[in-house]
Amino acid sequence: MTTIAPTDPKLGIKLRAAVDGLAKPPGALGRVEDIAVRLGLIQNTLKPTARRARLMVFAGDHGLTAEGVSRYPAAVTLAMVQTFLAGRASANAFANAVDADIQVIDAGIAQALPDHPNYVQAALRRGTRNAAVEPALTGDEVQTALSRGAALAQEAKGFDILVMGEMGIGNTASAALLMHALTGIPLHLCVGRGAGQDDAGLAHKLAVLQRTAARAPVKDPLAALSEFGGCEIAMMAGAMLGAASVRRAVIVDGFISTAAALAAARLTPAVLDYCFFAHRSAESGHGLMLDALQAKPLLELDMRLGEGTGGLLAVPLLRAAARLLSDVISLEEVLKSGS
Amino acid sequence: MTTIAPTDPKLGIKLRAAVDGLAKPPGALGRVEDIAVRLGLIQNTLKPTARRARLMVFAGDHGLTAEGVSRYPAAVTLAMVQTFLAGRASANAFANAVDADIQVIDAGIAQALPDHPNYVQAALRRGTRNAAVEPALTGDEVQTALSRGAALAQEAKGFDILVMGEMGIGNTASAALLMHALTGIPLHLCVGRGAGQDDAGLAHKLAVLQRTAARAPVKDPLAALSEFGGCEIAMMAGAMLGAASVRRAVIVDGFISTAAALAAARLTPAVLDYCFFAHRSAESGHGLMLDALQAKPLLELDMRLGEGTGGLLAVPLLRAAARLLSDVISLEEVLKSGS
Repeated sequence: MTTIAPTDPKLGIKLRAAVDGLAKPPGALGRVEDIAVRLGLIQNTLKPTARRARLMVFAGDHGLTAEGVSRYPAAVTLAMVQTFLAGRASANAFANAVDADIQVIDAGIAQALPDHPNYVQAALRRGTRNAAVEPALTGDEVQTALSRGAALAQEAKGFDILVMGEMGIGNTASAALLMHALTGIPLHLCVGRGAGQDDAGLAHKLAVLQRTAARAPVKDPLAALSEFGGCEIAMMAGAMLGAASVRRAVIVDGFISTAAALAAARLTPAVLDYCFFAHRSAESGHGLMLDALQAKPLLELDMRLGEGTGGLLAVPLLRAAARLLSDVISLEEVLKSGS
Repeated sequence: MTTIAPTDPKLGIKLRAAVDGLAKPPGALGRVEDIAVRLGLIQNTLKPTARRARLMVFAGDHGLTAEGVSRYPAAVTLAMVQTFLAGRASANAFANAVDADIQVIDAGIAQALPDHPNYVQAALRRGTRNAAVEPALTGDEVQTALSRGAALAQEAKGFDILVMGEMGIGNTASAALLMHALTGIPLHLCVGRGAGQDDAGLAHKLAVLQRTAARAPVKDPLAALSEFGGCEIAMMAGAMLGAASVRRAVIVDGFISTAAALAAARLTPAVLDYCFFAHRSAESGHGLMLDALQAKPLLELDMRLGEGTGGLLAVPLLRAAARLLSDVISLEEVLKSGS
């Protein structure tokens, strides 16, 4: 397993002093100053860098879709993965806009794809089992997902920032079940419309998930990942743990990505020292899950797409924060040069 | 004067249909979709571009600082302008982070600076008169400011986005007076701590501004700019009008930049069709001023520095939005290729 060092509070005091000593009124850059301090803590330095960013899109299919929990057919997962590789999804557009690399990780989609420079074939299995009737993944599959995810994040050398995104029809259902299992928040507050369920679809989704949660009343993160999946959520949790183990900053995207962070934090709480929460999604339940993690998201733009789109929009905030500590003159230097 | 064409509601319907037709659930990108539509309207096209961005930092000094309205000495304006030109201010750090150009416009600082590629000498006068005792600017000076600002924005060829920032010790005082004059909101709700006044300093600032507002109970935007200044606010208002006249997107920064937008909007309401409001500043009063403009800011990061720092952080949001309409495949194309 990965080992994660908690960040150093003494360094935090030095970083805060460095930010306060810049040529600007103390505190005038608000939350960007906090990001700068946290980046320094993550990289264990007074001069953090946040230049190269990679979006890791974990993709997987869900046996639970057999119960009709999603408005879209499961085949859309594969179609969207092909669209990422063709460079024509929303995540590609946003990655182009913020100059980020994209890596698409097949954690368990229904079928493998041909080789492509941005495609990593790391599938645990071809879609999860139907969690309404049996565990979505075996315990071994969960362990494999965690270690493969960790390895991918550790291998991302040269990248200062890893954005965690996902694609998987049915995965708001898995994420809601994980949220309920790991926080105890009532299920109806965890379940939302996902990619666009109407009222009847939402009621059906809630009924299926109530039955599923009742089948497996677990509270342990490994057990919950096994019961509810998905491949992409478990592998993303592993990637977060792996990134933290090599002191690499993680940007958590929306509802599903936050469920992965929740599972990772229940396994190793120190992972949260390495995570930035990009945005508050419009998916109902996301706000409560962020609260359960005591996480304050950076953006609120009524987005609910996933793919890492929200996470990508937070990349420039980290870059700006790191630049404060490298590019901006200190008050002390100003006073020296003026004398 | 500049002429500003209101944007075309029929094109807006087409743009919304184009965004809705992309390969994602309708509305799933929330406010970024709205930005995409507005960028198309601004550029009068279904395929807007938002690549090159320029920060225009308008700098000026304020005679009102003689009354002790700022915590910092007036000489800090010049020192910070020198810091911008040396590339070592917070605005430079953020511009580096988001890949934006910087132009520093001397609208009326206390003394001119030597030539520099990023420095534009456009001073109306060397600091405004003391608005507590006489009009800060003459009517002719206001007209000159508006036309010089407009010309600078119109001349910024090759830039898709102009971010409006400022530097001027004392300018939250001018901005508060403008806000009060142009909205009728009680002065005590318009006045804030600026660069860091303590309670006593804030009380003194309010008393000075009450006396100043009582001396000149104006409501007209040209009269208000003349009475309260400053050089940089008037020139920034002109730049916003000029940018809109050539269909160039404007990003408004914080409290002072929003006061300039307010003055510009009172002169030509259609300018608001071309403005994005970057963030809600921590300067008290900014929220109310945004409300008065029916503007919903994109970010809220507890920032209150000015310099255009908040505006720069909104640049990637515009870039991402424009990329949606150029990079993302439509559902129709997906269905065609799948058949």
